[in-house]
Amino acid sequence: MSEFDYLKEKVIEVGKNLLEWRKKEFTISSKSSKHDLVTSLDLRVQEFLYNSLSQKFPEIGFLGEESGMDKKPSTKGYWVIDPIDGTVNFSKMLPMFCISAAYVENDEPKYGIIYAPVMNQIITAEKDKGVLLNEEKVVPKWAKNIDDAMISMGNIRGKTYKYFEALETKVMRLRLLGTAALQIAYVGTGYFDAFISVKGNSWDVAAGYIIVKEAGGIITDYNGNPSNIFNKKNIYSNPYIHEELIKIIKSI
Amino acid sequence: MSEFDYLKEKVIEVGKNLLEWRKKEFTISSKSSKHDLVTSLDLRVQEFLYNSLSQKFPEIGFLGEESGMDKKPSTKGYWVIDPIDGTVNFSKMLPMFCISAAYVENDEPKYGIIYAPVMNQIITAEKDKGVLLNEEKVVPKWAKNIDDAMISMGNIRGKTYKYFEALETKVMRLRLLGTAALQIAYVGTGYFDAFISVKGNSWDVAAGYIIVKEAGGIITDYNGNPSNIFNKKNIYSNPYIHEELIKIIKSI
Repeated sequence: MSEFDYLKEKVIEVGKNLLEWRKKEFTISSKSSKHDLVTSLDLRVQEFLYNSLSQKFPEIGFLGEESGMDKKPSTKGYWVIDPIDGTVNFSKMLPMFCISAAYVENDEPKYGIIYAPVMNQIITAEKDKGVLLNEEKVVPKWAKNIDDAMISMGNIRGKTYKYFEALETKVMRLRLLGTAALQIAYVGTGYFDAFISVKGNSWDVAAGYIIVKEAGGIITDYNGNPSNIFNKKNIYSNPYIHEELIKIIKSI
Repeated sequence: MSEFDYLKEKVIEVGKNLLEWRKKEFTISSKSSKHDLVTSLDLRVQEFLYNSLSQKFPEIGFLGEESGMDKKPSTKGYWVIDPIDGTVNFSKMLPMFCISAAYVENDEPKYGIIYAPVMNQIITAEKDKGVLLNEEKVVPKWAKNIDDAMISMGNIRGKTYKYFEALETKVMRLRLLGTAALQIAYVGTGYFDAFISVKGNSWDVAAGYIIVKEAGGIITDYNGNPSNIFNKKNIYSNPYIHEELIKIIKSI
């Protein structure tokens, strides 16, 4: 079994477990601020994946969102894992959350997996092999003009309204689902035409990054320059509207 | 079989059909404006429900969103149906859409059904019988303070940002999923603490209305006065934060 297949198997396994685990009690606590939450199940999912992956592939490093694993490993290759992306949604029982898992080499994602267990959607991409949604090849049907575009974005407390003010009359619709990783993956499937990352950490974006790239999307910083998974403010866009979107974002 | 059970059976049947129908081609057209969309499947779902219901219960009127059925019937009791709530999401293949169906008597919903087929969630309420999610009784776990609240709202082109500006630093999170009916139902399940309707038609809100009422929620206009399904600007709220939320909305 390839590393990719093993990762996918374990992500699906723990995602299905998660649906069972959350039926029972779980605890919710704050991290950096009152509104930055973690649940006991974020930790449990991360531990499951860390144990599974490090046992089978001890030479590969591990970068995860939770509890002391959030430093970039010194190994050439490493996993980048967000055990639950959309923790606040998850804590309220909303269906929009996912597990995000990628393998990164020389700081560039080689493959990525997004699994949204309530929606039963698994979105994957491997370098030079395109994007699969539930194992079927995806050809995104993107809007050709910004006026027809469906745009999603992250949450940046106290400033989200400025993005809405600049964008909402120029695009077809704006969405705020509350999970960066899933929204980026949805650019890759063509459901969204762009995602605006306002404070994305590498674990939020690594899997989505390769999914958007493999779909033929464009990823840049707010100035339109090539970017990477460590830049917190990126645009993940369909190629047709990217230039126009950058212009609007620059005006904010 | 009761009228409620028959309606539920037909809504689930057509919702499952819809997942099959949308795998093939469907057409998307504009209605009142370029950004107000309808698909051929909205019409097909409405037709299916109209035919099923009017054949079995000819004495009950029919109020539906699409094609000439959008006038309030003169019968005492009537169905209020949105064949696809979240059409724009649906047209982009996003999972957040639902079928909304209610039975209304003397302009007051007696029971309501929301079915989100991709999420496999069916949320129902009958007067004085509470709320069920996938046939299990729901006890919403709502936030006690506005600062811990998860609020959703509708889309009002060019003005959404004003709501965000007023709200986003006062609540835990804001969401914009793009389906009024499902977001209102999610107040009833406790996933959201409130939904702000900015231009809701009766077919968008009728099922959600009885779901929120039966969950113990409060429904008022923006001034905090009792309201109904025909008022386009309502607050669907958990009882703990309602007063505070009205204060903020009034300030917009």
